[in-house]
Amino acid sequence: MAQAEIGLIGLGVMGSNLALNIAEKGNKIAVFNRTAERTREFYEEAGSLKDQIVPCETIEEFVAAIRPPRPIIIMIKAGDPVDQQMELLKPFLEKNDIMIDAGNANFRDTMRRFDALKDSGLTFIGMGVSGGEEGARHGPSIMVGGKEDSWKRVEKVLTSIAAKYNDEPCVAWLGENGAGHFVKTIHNGIEYADMQMIAEIYGILRDGLNMSATEIGKVFDTWNKGRLNSYLIEISGTVLETADPLTGKPIVDMILDKAGQKGTGKWSVIEAQNMGVPATAIEAAVAARSLSSMKDEREAAEKTLGLPGLSALSVSDRDAFIKDLESALLAGKIGAYAQGFAVMSAASKEFGWNLPMPTIAKIWRAGCIIRSQFLDEITSAFTAAPDAANLIVTPAFSTMVKETDGALRRVVSAAVLAGLPVPALASALGYFDSYRRGRGTANMIQAQRDFFGAHGFDRIDGADNHHGPWGSGLVAGA
Amino acid sequence: MAQAEIGLIGLGVMGSNLALNIAEKGNKIAVFNRTAERTREFYEEAGSLKDQIVPCETIEEFVAAIRPPRPIIIMIKAGDPVDQQMELLKPFLEKNDIMIDAGNANFRDTMRRFDALKDSGLTFIGMGVSGGEEGARHGPSIMVGGKEDSWKRVEKVLTSIAAKYNDEPCVAWLGENGAGHFVKTIHNGIEYADMQMIAEIYGILRDGLNMSATEIGKVFDTWNKGRLNSYLIEISGTVLETADPLTGKPIVDMILDKAGQKGTGKWSVIEAQNMGVPATAIEAAVAARSLSSMKDEREAAEKTLGLPGLSALSVSDRDAFIKDLESALLAGKIGAYAQGFAVMSAASKEFGWNLPMPTIAKIWRAGCIIRSQFLDEITSAFTAAPDAANLIVTPAFSTMVKETDGALRRVVSAAVLAGLPVPALASALGYFDSYRRGRGTANMIQAQRDFFGAHGFDRIDGADNHHGPWGSGLVAGA
Repeated sequence: MAQAEIGLIGLGVMGSNLALNIAEKGNKIAVFNRTAERTREFYEEAGSLKDQIVPCETIEEFVAAIRPPRPIIIMIKAGDPVDQQMELLKPFLEKNDIMIDAGNANFRDTMRRFDALKDSGLTFIGMGVSGGEEGARHGPSIMVGGKEDSWKRVEKVLTSIAAKYNDEPCVAWLGENGAGHFVKTIHNGIEYADMQMIAEIYGILRDGLNMSATEIGKVFDTWNKGRLNSYLIEISGTVLETADPLTGKPIVDMILDKAGQKGTGKWSVIEAQNMGVPATAIEAAVAARSLSSMKDEREAAEKTLGLPGLSALSVSDRDAFIKDLESALLAGKIGAYAQGFAVMSAASKEFGWNLPMPTIAKIWRAGCIIRSQFLDEITSAFTAAPDAANLIVTPAFSTMVKETDGALRRVVSAAVLAGLPVPALASALGYFDSYRRGRGTANMIQAQRDFFGAHGFDRIDGADNHHGPWGSGLVAGA
Repeated sequence: MAQAEIGLIGLGVMGSNLALNIAEKGNKIAVFNRTAERTREFYEEAGSLKDQIVPCETIEEFVAAIRPPRPIIIMIKAGDPVDQQMELLKPFLEKNDIMIDAGNANFRDTMRRFDALKDSGLTFIGMGVSGGEEGARHGPSIMVGGKEDSWKRVEKVLTSIAAKYNDEPCVAWLGENGAGHFVKTIHNGIEYADMQMIAEIYGILRDGLNMSATEIGKVFDTWNKGRLNSYLIEISGTVLETADPLTGKPIVDMILDKAGQKGTGKWSVIEAQNMGVPATAIEAAVAARSLSSMKDEREAAEKTLGLPGLSALSVSDRDAFIKDLESALLAGKIGAYAQGFAVMSAASKEFGWNLPMPTIAKIWRAGCIIRSQFLDEITSAFTAAPDAANLIVTPAFSTMVKETDGALRRVVSAAVLAGLPVPALASALGYFDSYRRGRGTANMIQAQRDFFGAHGFDRIDGADNHHGPWGSGLVAGA
């Protein structure tokens, strides 16, 4: 019997689905799980795919079943369990075998693991997989970081299982060590911002225009046929139109407004901060989730402070305003994606990865949570202008910003007056307005810093590191 | 000759001023510098304070000059130099001697240094000193972290040199290990937000109302007599009215709009993120400094995108709008300080410090950069309501929010329409509007997360960890 092309450890929901996907695409796969019972169960349920699956109950058997050099996907809970699993596995492996962490690892752990194997003859891939359970089963977006040799060994299998956009597979090798998991982290950071902006627009429709969930769902359905066409807009429509089986009411109205988070949003922001790259829309989205979880504090604050702002949105032309909301959401997205790509661009320099921006946009067009037509436009924009300092100054996107930022302004302005929170949308707008202003207001900050801390400042006439004549009595005329 | 009460290493500007302050308040102080020449120079320039100063040219001599247990202030460049200095010093010290890092340390370094000395018999204080050169010389705000015993040894000296607010000294012991440097970090984070909001208001006056620097200076002078009375508003007026010696123009107009930063703002944000506490106004301020430093990109973006928004602010009553700006700045400050105190409150639990909020507000009332009447109001508010979940729900501040947030709304709304960046002010407003809303929009986010990732959600009727009937065909009525 031919050896398996690849192995997989960890038959939870994500691991099982990934294994079935691999088998279904004609790749023989060896599988192993901590409990042999789960392995047997998985195999029994595999039906017609059984021929492609080698269920293994011991690590020895598992390793022996895979064609060397052996690529072994580890799909278990992120963190310490991965290190433990790697330690268990190592003694059975041979030179050039590849351990592949496909979980939601912090890329700094991935870099540590990659480095730790450097002189062992073994090697490591950190692989970001996006698309949830469905994606894992039928085609995820896959972001690979590791040695190029390791990538060559797995390229065929991963290409076969990845999502396709116009026949182009959504998988790529992005660089050494932590590149794949880093890009996955920023994918998730952008996803946070994308979802938060949708929630803000939903809030304006619900609390500002007093629309029902079902009515709002129809708005999202319409938008999904236009420039906002994307998975997240599509499912927004679907969830808003889904009834609660217990009450018959729209189910969103029965869901508690406390959002969870698993760390990738926070990691995005921390890394952006470490590199000094503004990522304010992502930060706003992470903060909004934190605020959402403080439900008791919020309820108490509403009692003390009352609801803010005007009682309702002041909107003269409702249809025009809903059109504005569509454009505002697009503009907000542009800001969030521009920030995410700017963070990746800085990280590419910081960590020596040479991250390919058009490729990243390309492999996010299908399979992952933020998949959209919009990402195809980003792909084209970065392909046409690979050296652009920022997405928003590419020809395609600068045009789009100019077409939509007026709507974003009107929406933020109206929401702010009515007391409807739009922190992520407002952050995206603040980003545009700061980024496109040649002469900002930091001269005032520099003057203060020099005044109280003698930090010095540069002058507009080119002289560097000056100090002000503070206290000299020199008075400026009006 | 009586021994010195305290020693100080590092006669740079900050160290020299601190040493002179200590001597002037009647405390005998031994001083040492890496280069003996600087020590001699410092001593020669000390004039009438010579009697209180013991200049030392060797570490042996220096240590012998101090009364045991010896408190030794290290005032040198933060980072590795501090570790090196401590290593050099240690062999000469005796049981219970106290090394005091008075530089701008990251509190995590302070915690590491404190822990490293645990079994050595020696001990450590991390001491945040705010107030710049002037403060160091005539009365800084001092935030002390370390063992309570160590604090007792230095209390008298530090109390004598600290700034006074209504005769109350601006110094306190805030807890063990990193407490002092953590509180100093958050002080600086708030300072970033405070300065950024001032710069945003300055930008509205300059670019929205086309006022000259001198005219704007007069506005700040007026505000400094009202509720905004504070050091930063005072110096804003001063710097705006100061002329450039070379051109005679207002000097702020000659200063390049690229602001520097030294890390404390970034640290504030990263620690807030680590603990999941929203600090969006501080984040916006840090991002604004980063954006300011991207001067070339901004100039290029202005060429590509043009200046955003309307050409000018739409303001019907100029005087009323300037009054609104004053109230908006106050409201924005409330948001930034509320976030900063919330971060400290979370850190207090996280690190087991039991940080005293009213005391922190108290010792920031004078000496430090953010000193203000406003901090006296915070002191009263936290003293009256020590268990308040947030500054903005204390009786005094909830009233103030209700009085001022309308102005903040109008200002943000107008600025946003005109394309004038107000990221920190808008973040503060978003914080109010999210924090005071009992029913937010995270139910939408939870629905999406369950849809694509089976993350589950809680229900408003109390049932936990549900999943939606996605794909069941259940349709909600309108």
